[in-house]
Amino acid sequence: MGDIYDNVIELARRRGFVWPSSECYGAVAGFIDYGPLGAMLKRKIENLWRGFYIIREGYYEIEAPTVGVESIYIASGHVKGFADKMCQCPVCKEYHRADHIADEHGTAHADSLSTEELAGIINGLPCPSCGEPLENADVFYFNLMFQTTIGPGSQRTGYLRPETAQGIFIDFNRLSRFYREKLPFGAVQIGKSYRNEISPRQGMIRLREFTQAEAEIFIHPDHKDHPEFSRYADYSVSLWGQTHQMQDIEPVTPTMREAVDSGLVANEYVAYYISLTHEFLTQVGINPKKLRFRQHLPTECAHYALDCWDAEIFSERFGWVEAVGIADRTDYDLKAHAKESGDKFSVFVPYDEVRYEQRRTIVPDMGALGPHYRGKAKAVADALIESEPGPDGATITLDGESLFIPADLYQIREETIEVRGEEVIPHVVEPSYGIDRILYCTLEHAYEEEDVEGEIRKVLHLNPAIAPVQAAVFPLMNKDGLDTIARNLALELQKTGILAQYDDNGAIGRRYRRQDEIGTPYTITIDYDTLKDHTVTLRERDSMQQVRLLASTVPETLSRLIQGTLPFAEAGRKI
Amino acid sequence: MGDIYDNVIELARRRGFVWPSSECYGAVAGFIDYGPLGAMLKRKIENLWRGFYIIREGYYEIEAPTVGVESIYIASGHVKGFADKMCQCPVCKEYHRADHIADEHGTAHADSLSTEELAGIINGLPCPSCGEPLENADVFYFNLMFQTTIGPGSQRTGYLRPETAQGIFIDFNRLSRFYREKLPFGAVQIGKSYRNEISPRQGMIRLREFTQAEAEIFIHPDHKDHPEFSRYADYSVSLWGQTHQMQDIEPVTPTMREAVDSGLVANEYVAYYISLTHEFLTQVGINPKKLRFRQHLPTECAHYALDCWDAEIFSERFGWVEAVGIADRTDYDLKAHAKESGDKFSVFVPYDEVRYEQRRTIVPDMGALGPHYRGKAKAVADALIESEPGPDGATITLDGESLFIPADLYQIREETIEVRGEEVIPHVVEPSYGIDRILYCTLEHAYEEEDVEGEIRKVLHLNPAIAPVQAAVFPLMNKDGLDTIARNLALELQKTGILAQYDDNGAIGRRYRRQDEIGTPYTITIDYDTLKDHTVTLRERDSMQQVRLLASTVPETLSRLIQGTLPFAEAGRKI
Repeated sequence: MGDIYDNVIELARRRGFVWPSSECYGAVAGFIDYGPLGAMLKRKIENLWRGFYIIREGYYEIEAPTVGVESIYIASGHVKGFADKMCQCPVCKEYHRADHIADEHGTAHADSLSTEELAGIINGLPCPSCGEPLENADVFYFNLMFQTTIGPGSQRTGYLRPETAQGIFIDFNRLSRFYREKLPFGAVQIGKSYRNEISPRQGMIRLREFTQAEAEIFIHPDHKDHPEFSRYADYSVSLWGQTHQMQDIEPVTPTMREAVDSGLVANEYVAYYISLTHEFLTQVGINPKKLRFRQHLPTECAHYALDCWDAEIFSERFGWVEAVGIADRTDYDLKAHAKESGDKFSVFVPYDEVRYEQRRTIVPDMGALGPHYRGKAKAVADALIESEPGPDGATITLDGESLFIPADLYQIREETIEVRGEEVIPHVVEPSYGIDRILYCTLEHAYEEEDVEGEIRKVLHLNPAIAPVQAAVFPLMNKDGLDTIARNLALELQKTGILAQYDDNGAIGRRYRRQDEIGTPYTITIDYDTLKDHTVTLRERDSMQQVRLLASTVPETLSRLIQGTLPFAEAGRKI
Repeated sequence: MGDIYDNVIELARRRGFVWPSSECYGAVAGFIDYGPLGAMLKRKIENLWRGFYIIREGYYEIEAPTVGVESIYIASGHVKGFADKMCQCPVCKEYHRADHIADEHGTAHADSLSTEELAGIINGLPCPSCGEPLENADVFYFNLMFQTTIGPGSQRTGYLRPETAQGIFIDFNRLSRFYREKLPFGAVQIGKSYRNEISPRQGMIRLREFTQAEAEIFIHPDHKDHPEFSRYADYSVSLWGQTHQMQDIEPVTPTMREAVDSGLVANEYVAYYISLTHEFLTQVGINPKKLRFRQHLPTECAHYALDCWDAEIFSERFGWVEAVGIADRTDYDLKAHAKESGDKFSVFVPYDEVRYEQRRTIVPDMGALGPHYRGKAKAVADALIESEPGPDGATITLDGESLFIPADLYQIREETIEVRGEEVIPHVVEPSYGIDRILYCTLEHAYEEEDVEGEIRKVLHLNPAIAPVQAAVFPLMNKDGLDTIARNLALELQKTGILAQYDDNGAIGRRYRRQDEIGTPYTITIDYDTLKDHTVTLRERDSMQQVRLLASTVPETLSRLIQGTLPFAEAGRKI
């Protein structure tokens, strides 16, 4: 038995993609190890992401620590609000997510219920661990941040970051100077984030330590038109809006131009990053038929977010998995850190044209005030500057007493002031990617079992651009110099930047199967004809077709095949 | 005033290399943020490292979590032994490293003294924070691991890893299968490690969260000859052995062949990675004159390490900084995890030829034993199998009683057993790199202030392969189409994988200075001649020389310049 998940995970473990973490000490839930092929695949997915966000969009990457001081997470709201509702089984003492138990027993939107409501619902339901009824189990909040202490003597509370985003927000002023205070600008971060899940039971989908790739794009609140929107204006993806969900209607597929104009998507920035995310995910290898964008319902959406869409990927095991979130977070984060830190979090935005404003200044005549008010003259002058004088004089308050200052004791100057611009707190648009979930779904969508001449062929149809091993080189026999030619070709491929494996172990058919299973897109066989005419056999993983070409042209041909600029049929003479 | 450190850090902050972390909340010591240029530089250093260890050496990268369960660090010895000696000032209550205080007041090898000895030495010395005398301050151990709790209800103690190495060791069996149990094999990891330093006061040199790049190479304990040793046999680096240090002799520079043959370096593996480290560091941009390899003294060397060398880089501010450690850790780590987990941590190593061993088996004759010993027959048989029979029979012990079993109640079979190989616990050779220290030293060694026509030119002489920005494109004027040509050229460079900046802000001289300061190796200027003959000016950062070449040839020319395959003088027509 076993569904595709079991098959994918079996392959992933056996071939070194993903391993249980600290297996020899009883693997602890919510942590995984990426093995040699998995770590390579992950790095390639991350680098593909960098291609979109750093090279194409021009947002620089920064790297902030994973351990942060408490103030950051007080400001962000995580200390107070980043918690799940938990219960403990009175019999086996195991902890569980109360909303998950309610959800599994048919309660809709269980995650939006209060602790009291949940306690009522789960009362008497069976414990997921021991099966005994959860009699009168309390439901209480558990903060999901991993806590630690920085320095000796409990000097300072620290948290493992629950998201990479805050590290970018608190660097806002440094970033703003780096970009010479010109909106829009953005910064990205790829790195570990941590959530101390109560009882994670979904493999790579719910991890306690996971990798995020987040972009924080700072834009002018009045200019939410993306300068490059034309790139995606005619792009269309599956959009499942709030009203569609509430009225039980299927997702729609308008163009992005239409989606923005009709108000389905809040603005061009959000629409642009929905499209970019779709392009990125399908390039990674996500099946576009199993990809949709779901708008957050009013009950899910953070109170500060203006609009929020999740890229959801369909998994045979887990259903629709939230893999990316794209939100317009407004100025919530920058304002929160400004308030908590006392620093200013804004940019000076010059007006297109300098504006002139009239300003009235009161200039006390100290020579005249001195004799009148003596020791109080300075206080009177200060109060005058702040006063609203009438035609004859100004009434001020000094030490609780009202005092009238005649107009001849000060001058009023009317000035025209040049105003060059204003301080603006930018809005933030945030596309946030869960790399581990994307990687798992990529494996699941790539996995296939085919019947080939009565045998099961397990194959990962990975995009050649992200396949961990890009080519394998086999000598037909491990002798007569075939092995030396094969080894040298593998080395030559490595030098041109193609990750190639040499394999001389077992029958050719078995070697093909081994490479198919890890998604190696191309295999090259050196045989006795190679000794005669210097040609080799090149096989394509997906079609299993083979062509014959000169060994010397293999590196160049493979580069073009991997880049997608050469169709396989034109790679050599068909055999 | 200010030494080179102050100048480098000022530049690093201003231009976005390195920023204090969580600055708006009062930067906490021991944490830094890499800004846009710093993160880019760091990634390039890491990728250069991958070029050596993954592509050339063929060791795959894995990725284990940063949070680990307690058992890992009980086995590794960190729970018990990973501690510094600390004291608290009785007046200001500040915590300090006791050995650092002793060291600053002239005590030699203060780090090897006991807590009692240190307490005696620091008694009465001034507190580094408040200056008051440390009267009768206790010296006690402080464990340097950040501690946290995994899951709710204090279910499981977790630690932030103090090194990436343990994540590789505990995956040993999975790795061994991945490499088909063929020694030698290796795995590498690049990632965050954590040490909760008592009072870090050395900027990027002593961080609480830092990046390590570690390789763990598993080798046969009897075969410590590196298969590719010939690559470095004639290589020579500055080696400062134990005896040199103890006899106050300068470092020596034998070839690696000589160093191994004379016993200065323990074996070819250690020598190989010393050389590779030297090659890597000098490629990164470390000045080879400020680089030496210092052998650990018997007092410093971990008791299990067979040999250990530190690559030390000279910093004007910090003196000789330990940046890399290269150790033969023997089978210590694998044995420790085998003991703690109960799993086997070994590989089956086949003999070159199958060996045959004589084995004697005792086969009890149950049909004969049964009537004699009835209920005890099975126990007698079991004892017989383990016994050492004489010619007439065997004496066994049963329930504390001695019993003689005559030879006719059992048979002795002599067999020849085929033995194909043996279980071997590999030794581990570990090169371990501190990426942040290497990055700081690279900046310091690259930094120069030159007097150019009466003005100070600040320049980072970064290796073009790791410079965060590789080329800048300037239009001479921001009009007449020069800007469009420049923008397009910058885009074209990006497409060929060269990170190029477009800059049209201010006088050309100031733009040059801005790029010199961040280490951009090449700048291209588009001027009015470009409109006539399509040529542009290419300037080299270090020599400030300029050549003229066709705009269309710039991408290809720059690629070759950055790879180091084209001398600048041949890049165009000198002007």
